[in-house]
Amino acid sequence: MGRWEPDSRGRLQEAALALFSERGFDQTTAAEIAARAGVTERTFFRHFADKREVLFGGSEVLRERIVTGVAGAPAGHAPLEAVADGLDAAAAMLGEARRDLTAQRQAVIAANPELRERELAKLAAYAAAVAATLRQRGVGELQATLAAEAGMSVLRAALERWANGHDDRSLPVIMADYLAELRAVTASS
Amino acid sequence: MGRWEPDSRGRLQEAALALFSERGFDQTTAAEIAARAGVTERTFFRHFADKREVLFGGSEVLRERIVTGVAGAPAGHAPLEAVADGLDAAAAMLGEARRDLTAQRQAVIAANPELRERELAKLAAYAAAVAATLRQRGVGELQATLAAEAGMSVLRAALERWANGHDDRSLPVIMADYLAELRAVTASS
Repeated sequence: MGRWEPDSRGRLQEAALALFSERGFDQTTAAEIAARAGVTERTFFRHFADKREVLFGGSEVLRERIVTGVAGAPAGHAPLEAVADGLDAAAAMLGEARRDLTAQRQAVIAANPELRERELAKLAAYAAAVAATLRQRGVGELQATLAAEAGMSVLRAALERWANGHDDRSLPVIMADYLAELRAVTASS
Repeated sequence: MGRWEPDSRGRLQEAALALFSERGFDQTTAAEIAARAGVTERTFFRHFADKREVLFGGSEVLRERIVTGVAGAPAGHAPLEAVADGLDAAAAMLGEARRDLTAQRQAVIAANPELRERELAKLAAYAAAVAATLRQRGVGELQATLAAEAGMSVLRAALERWANGHDDRSLPVIMADYLAELRAVTASS
């Protein structure tokens, strides 16, 4: 297929996740991903720096969406409500079409300790960015950190639930439910 | 000094943290740590598998304390109260004598991306262990995860505050304060 084949990036992602699932991440090469997607290896490297980038290349965009959602929350919103607005923005980016890919991605990461550490680092970076955005909204240092980290716990748990195939609800609905659970578990005494 | 010198482990830890702080983690060898502590390299390796173990060797014990604290919470305690009991058990282990060493350790870890990822993985492992313990107490899957992760956010933030030298309060007092802040930030709307 030609160099300017439309959506070769999307096809590369699907091919990569399929191969990672079948053979394991370490046993898959960029050349094999390109071949499965029907493009040249050069095309692969035009889209991704390396095979790990296939799993984490969307992280920057997702972080941007969350941060923009938090920053754009109405002025009167409490810290955790602003975080919820950020989560909604993230959910809007991850539509139903991404549910299966998200499940595959999570399974690949769960199977590999190095990828798990990388994923934790990404989530910590999201939390730090959200906390910084909350502080710009006037939230105190500590409350910003705690609200941001609790929000990322909700994001991760909701993504896992959404992707695992046992819950037909949409991601925003699961997230709202999980935020309510967070409020309940911290309120009880 | 002799092979059975008492508390060579403690002196090795102090020497290692001093050297890591002065030269950086990557620039310090086990031989240099042993020399600074006045023991042989062989003694170093009797206490630690490698120099990273000096920073993370206490993690297993700390996790055990937290888990034991959670498991031993009175039956009527709500999930976050049981987590608070685990945090108290951790604080009891980290007495005032450890405050300066904790500050040094945190600075060394903060300066090194690989160590930061390792530390995040340790905290995630604590959270998973606490969540598993809560589930054994009958707490639901999701509430256990959210309470455990929020608790670890509190632990990390409180440790940082306690170690940074700008707060004279004891670690248990700071932790109780931070747990109250967590409740406040998740309750507000």
